[in-house]
Amino acid sequence: MAVSNIRYGAGVTKEVGMDLQNMGAKNVCLMTDKNLSQLPPVQMVMDSLVKNGINFKVYNNVRVEPTDRSFMEAIEFVKKRAFDAYVAVGGGSTMDTCKAANLYASSPHSDFLDYVNAPIGKGKPVSVPLKPLIAVPTTSGTGSETTGVAIFDYEPLKVKTGIASRAIKPTLGLIDPLHTLHMPDRVVANSGFDVLCHALESYTALPYHMRSPCPSNPITRPAYQGSNPISDIWAVHALRIVAKYLKRAVRNPDDLEARSNMHLASAFAGIGFGNAGVHLCHGMSYPISGLVKTYKAKDYNVDHPLVPHGLSVVLTSPAVFTFTAQMSPERHLETAEILGADTRTARIPDAGPILADTLRKFLFDLDVDDGLAAIGYSKADIPALVKGTLPQERVTKLAPRPQSEEDLSALFEASMKLY
Amino acid sequence: MAVSNIRYGAGVTKEVGMDLQNMGAKNVCLMTDKNLSQLPPVQMVMDSLVKNGINFKVYNNVRVEPTDRSFMEAIEFVKKRAFDAYVAVGGGSTMDTCKAANLYASSPHSDFLDYVNAPIGKGKPVSVPLKPLIAVPTTSGTGSETTGVAIFDYEPLKVKTGIASRAIKPTLGLIDPLHTLHMPDRVVANSGFDVLCHALESYTALPYHMRSPCPSNPITRPAYQGSNPISDIWAVHALRIVAKYLKRAVRNPDDLEARSNMHLASAFAGIGFGNAGVHLCHGMSYPISGLVKTYKAKDYNVDHPLVPHGLSVVLTSPAVFTFTAQMSPERHLETAEILGADTRTARIPDAGPILADTLRKFLFDLDVDDGLAAIGYSKADIPALVKGTLPQERVTKLAPRPQSEEDLSALFEASMKLY
Ligand SMILES: NC(=O)c1ccc[n+]([C@@H]2O[C@H](COP(=O)([O-])OP(=O)(O)OC[C@H]3O[C@@H](n4cnc5c(N)ncnc54)[C@H](O)[C@@H]3O)[C@@H](O)[C@H]2O)c1
Ligand SMILES: NC(=O)c1ccc[n+]([C@@H]2O[C@H](COP(=O)([O-])OP(=O)(O)OC[C@H]3O[C@@H](n4cnc5c(N)ncnc54)[C@H](O)[C@@H]3O)[C@@H](O)[C@H]2O)c1
Ligand SMILES: [Fe+2]
Ligand SMILES: [Fe+2]
Repeated sequence: MAVSNIRYGAGVTKEVGMDLQNMGAKNVCLMTDKNLSQLPPVQMVMDSLVKNGINFKVYNNVRVEPTDRSFMEAIEFVKKRAFDAYVAVGGGSTMDTCKAANLYASSPHSDFLDYVNAPIGKGKPVSVPLKPLIAVPTTSGTGSETTGVAIFDYEPLKVKTGIASRAIKPTLGLIDPLHTLHMPDRVVANSGFDVLCHALESYTALPYHMRSPCPSNPITRPAYQGSNPISDIWAVHALRIVAKYLKRAVRNPDDLEARSNMHLASAFAGIGFGNAGVHLCHGMSYPISGLVKTYKAKDYNVDHPLVPHGLSVVLTSPAVFTFTAQMSPERHLETAEILGADTRTARIPDAGPILADTLRKFLFDLDVDDGLAAIGYSKADIPALVKGTLPQERVTKLAPRPQSEEDLSALFEASMKLY
Repeated sequence: MAVSNIRYGAGVTKEVGMDLQNMGAKNVCLMTDKNLSQLPPVQMVMDSLVKNGINFKVYNNVRVEPTDRSFMEAIEFVKKRAFDAYVAVGGGSTMDTCKAANLYASSPHSDFLDYVNAPIGKGKPVSVPLKPLIAVPTTSGTGSETTGVAIFDYEPLKVKTGIASRAIKPTLGLIDPLHTLHMPDRVVANSGFDVLCHALESYTALPYHMRSPCPSNPITRPAYQGSNPISDIWAVHALRIVAKYLKRAVRNPDDLEARSNMHLASAFAGIGFGNAGVHLCHGMSYPISGLVKTYKAKDYNVDHPLVPHGLSVVLTSPAVFTFTAQMSPERHLETAEILGADTRTARIPDAGPILADTLRKFLFDLDVDDGLAAIGYSKADIPALVKGTLPQERVTKLAPRPQSEEDLSALFEASMKLY
C-alpha cells in the first residue's frame, strides 16, 4: 500500500506558497467552488501565494458534486493555460475536479472516457506524468487528499462513476483544522458520515486474500485491494475518532478539538479505504445521488437539487451492515461497540442488527432524514436504483457477501425508512 | 509524513522478479550477508529472478552491524557494475548497506562523509536520483524497509552514525512472514526489542509542535519530526503486537501467527519512528554497540564481537523511561498498561517506575542479559559511553526532556544492572 504525503497542523496552509516555490512552480491553478471562493480558506491560500510571489489563476467554477460536464469545463480551462502546478482548496468536489483537470491537461489527446472506470469508460491505465497537485481539504469527509480517486456524476446515464489511478493522488495534502471552523453543521454531519462509511466499509470489505481474480502480476492489481492488516488500523482509528468527536463537531462550530480530530479522521479513513476499498454503501449511493429529484440539502449553498455524498452513503448503512454481518460478525460487533453499543452480552448471530440499531440511533441523534423516502424516493424508484448500482462492480464486488439484484432491491427497500 | 510502498503476505517474495521486470531492470544487484546467502529467503529471491529472466549478481559480503569500511566495500562493488536496480534480502544490516551502495553509486563523485549525518559527516541533502531498491526484510526489527535511514559504525571514532534522507527509502518493501521462520531465537528477541524501542521512543518523543528550531521552509524540516497524531497510531499499534506476540515468537519457531505479526509490527513501528524519530535508547545505544569489547551474541553467526542493535537499545530502556516519564506520564502509563501492567490504581507520578518495572519483567522473561555489566561494561567505561552519545544530537534532542552529561552518566550507571 502507498500513502501520500500529508502535513497536519493549524495554519499549515500558510506554507503552500513556499511548497510551490520549492516545487519550482511558476504558473499555478488555484481551484475551488463559488461558495468557498468567498471564504477564509481560499483567502489564506491566496495570501500565501502572493507573499511568495507565485503567479496564479483562480478557477472557482467547480460544481458541488461534479458531473462529466463540470469536469470537462474545468479541463477546458486548464488545457488553455499550461499550468505547472495545482492547488485545490475545498471538499471532495473541488479536489476531484482538480485531479481530473490535471490528468487530462497532461494527456491532451485522450478522450474523456479513456480514463473513466469500466464499464462506463475504458479504464485505461495512466502512463503520462502529471503536474504536482497540493490538496487543501476544507470538509472533513472524503479523504480525497489521500486517494487516487475522482468521482463525478455521468449525466448521460444519471449515475456516479469515477477515475481511479494512483497517478492522480495529490502530491501533498495540507490538513489544516482552521478551515473546519467555517463549515455549516450539515456539511460537518454529512462529510462526517462519509468518514464513518469509509471506515466501516473498508474494515468489513472482503479480506485481501479472498479477492478474485488474483492478478498474477502485481502491476495489474487494483488500487482497492480488500481489507488488510494495514488498512484495518486506519479504519479502526478513524472510527474511534468519529465515535468520540463527530457529534461534538456537528453541534458546536467552535469546538476546535472535535473539528480538528474529525479533519484528521477524514485523512486516516481515506488512507484506509484508498488501499482497501469501500463496498455497498458507496456502490448503492451513486444512483441515490445520481437520480436525485428535487431534494435540496440544508446548509449547501448551491443552485441545484442535491443529495450530499455523505448522506447518500449513510442512509443505507443500517440495511447494508445487517446484510453483510454474517460474513464477519466479530468485526461488525467490534465496530458497534466502538460506536457506543453495549456488546457485553451480545450474541454473535445478532451482530448485524446490533450494529444497525447503533447506526440508527447515531443518525437519529444527528437529525438525519428518515431514510430514502424522506429524500424523495419511493418503492417505484427501486428498479432504477438497482439498475444504477449494477455498473458499480468495482466497489460492490468488494462486499464480503455477493449480492443478487433481489438482494439489492431488498436493501433499498429496507432503507426507505430508518426510525 | 510519507510512507513507502509495502506489500505483505506469505510468499510475496516470489513476485520480486516480476516487480523488477515491471521496473524495466536488466542488471540487478542482490545484496545479503554470508549467513543468509545459505538460507531459504535468498534462495526464494534467486528463484524468482531466474524464473523471470532477470540478470543479477550477488553481493553477500554485508557485515552484520555494518561499519564505514563494510559500507565502502559494498559501494566499491556496485560502482564497478552499473546496476539498474537493487534487491536487499536480510536484516537492517543488509538493507542499510544496500541503501548506502545505491546512494554512492548514484553520486559517484561524492566523498563518503558528504551524506553522513552531521556532526560526524557533512549531512548534505541528496539531490541525485537513485535506482529502485526492493527491500525484503528477514528479521522483524529495524523496519528499515520503510525508512530513509542507513546506520553504520564509524570506526575512526568507534561510534555509530548514519545517513538519513527520504531519498534512500526503499522503493518497495516485500514483507513476507515466511522468512521469519528461519530466525534463531535470539535474533527474534533482539530484533523484537528494536521494535519495542522504536514504538516506545517514537510515542514518547518530543511532540512535533514543540520541536525547535522550527524551520520556516517545509523543505528543510528533518525526517524526524517528533511525535505526532499519525506516528502515534503506528507506534501504539506496533506496541500492542509486541505485547501480544513477541514472547510467543521467540519461544516457538513454528508459531507463524506470532512471527507474522511481529514481521508486520516491525514495518509499522518503522513507519512510526521514520516520521517521528527515536530518542535516548537509540542515542545511547550507538556507543554501547560501537565500543563493544569481547561480547559475542548467542545465535549470531558472525566472526566478530557484537552487541546486536536490539539488545543495545533495550538495555537502557528502564532507566530512560524512568527519566522521561515526568514529561508525559499519561503516555508512559498507557504503554506500561499495553505491556501488561495493572495500572488501575496507579498514580501519575509513578508512571516512570511502573513502566520501568514492566520492562524489566518483560526482559527477564525473555532471558535478556542483566544490564550493561553483563555485556562487558563497567563504571570506568561510562565517560566513553557518554562521549559517544553526545554526537547523537539528531536523535537525543528528540527526547522529551533535555539531558546534561551528568544525566547521561546517571542513565548509563542505572543500566549496569537490571534485575
Ligand atoms: N475522491 C475520493 O476519494 C472521494 C471519496 C468520497 C467522496 N468523494 C466525492 O466528493 C464529493 C463530496 O465532497 P465533500 O463532501 O467534501 O463536499 P463538497 O466538496 O461537495 O462541498 C460541499 C459544500 O460545502 C461547502 N464547503 C466546503 N468546505 C467548507 C468550509 N470549510 N466552510 C464552509 N463551506 C464549505 C462547499 O462550498 C459546498 O457547498 C462527492 O462528489 C463525492 O462523490 C470523493
Ligand atoms: N535503517 C533503519 O531504519 C534501522 C533501524 C534500526 C536498526 N538499524 C540497523 O540495523 C542493524 C541490525 O539489523 P537486524 O537487527 O535486522 O539484524 P542483522 O541484519 O544485523 O542480522 C542479524 C543476524 O541475523 C541473521 N539473520 C537475519 N535474518 C535471518 C533469518 N530470517 N534467518 C536466519 N538468520 C537470519 C543475519 O544473517 C545476521 O547474522 C544494525 O546495524 C542497526 O543499527 C537500522
Ligand atoms: Fe465517500
Ligand atoms: Fe532501532
